[in-house]
Amino acid sequence: MHIDFWFEFGSTYSYPAAMRIEKLASQQGIHVNWRPFLLGPIFREQGLADSPFNLNPAKGRYMWRDLERSCRALGIPFQQPSQFPRNGLLAARVACCFDDELWVPAFIRAVYRANFVVDTDIADPIVISSCIAGAGEDPEAVLEKAQSPESKQKLRQQTDEAVRIGIFGAPTVVVGDELFWGNDRLEHALAWAKS
Amino acid sequence: MHIDFWFEFGSTYSYPAAMRIEKLASQQGIHVNWRPFLLGPIFREQGLADSPFNLNPAKGRYMWRDLERSCRALGIPFQQPSQFPRNGLLAARVACCFDDELWVPAFIRAVYRANFVVDTDIADPIVISSCIAGAGEDPEAVLEKAQSPESKQKLRQQTDEAVRIGIFGAPTVVVGDELFWGNDRLEHALAWAKS
Repeated sequence: MHIDFWFEFGSTYSYPAAMRIEKLASQQGIHVNWRPFLLGPIFREQGLADSPFNLNPAKGRYMWRDLERSCRALGIPFQQPSQFPRNGLLAARVACCFDDELWVPAFIRAVYRANFVVDTDIADPIVISSCIAGAGEDPEAVLEKAQSPESKQKLRQQTDEAVRIGIFGAPTVVVGDELFWGNDRLEHALAWAKS
Repeated sequence: MHIDFWFEFGSTYSYPAAMRIEKLASQQGIHVNWRPFLLGPIFREQGLADSPFNLNPAKGRYMWRDLERSCRALGIPFQQPSQFPRNGLLAARVACCFDDELWVPAFIRAVYRANFVVDTDIADPIVISSCIAGAGEDPEAVLEKAQSPESKQKLRQQTDEAVRIGIFGAPTVVVGDELFWGNDRLEHALAWAKS
């Protein structure tokens, strides 16, 4: 039994979902496939030059407050980043390139903490290197492979696949043909996988 | 103790929230203020000529499936309307004009059933008349007062108030200064009101 967890490193609601999903899924005997992708190209296809949360200030204000309340209720630390959205391209290339390696979930959570707890710039290779090292790997070797043409192409194809299966936002959990969008649909997705 | 329930008759996720809120709130000793408003002017302010669910087909497809799943899980009947969004102006004028009358919650639920269960056009005065009659009132007298200049002005002011307090979508439950957007935030809003 498995679910696909589609996420974007710059996405706010992907943060609590990414911190929770592995524990919740494993408690129910469900395997998580981590599927990083990029929201930027998807938003641009929709004619948006920025995050909808920046383009619609009332929605943005609400989102930050709701995220703060949601994280508090879930016992997840949170600090509003001083920059939003941050560019998650390099982190996504790493997570996509090595997606079947056991150290990747720890790397992913480290990147989210860097963005949404420590408020550091995840576009900075130094920050990503420290997340790789924290997950027990050699940053130099990982970054070299993650930035190879094959790795870049793999992430592009994964973003294309996201669009093809109907994904329009993050996080989205996919269970068979069913999409569950949002941190607040995580429990529904797991229940669906079990049913 | 009270909460403000801001809703729009054409709004999909307002439907399950409107069907649930009075029972859930009264079980906890919380009074519901029904606050109808119009999303059309708010979307137009954002530069949108239609519902975001129509402008973004992937998001729209997801919404209909998610709404179907959500209503089923909540035991609420649902049939996807053949037209979306339907124009809720007349219904909103009735609900706004008579908002402190005891028959109004039953009228509101009847309008939502007409739209999202029976698939009838709630812009049609005959449909609205039947919802008024079903709530025990005289349709002719109610519709005359609801379409008076004072009643039209009251609904315009209520929509202005929605924007002023930061509402950007429906349903939104307001508890003091806190906004809770979406049917899936209903329980959080009630818990907040009790805390």
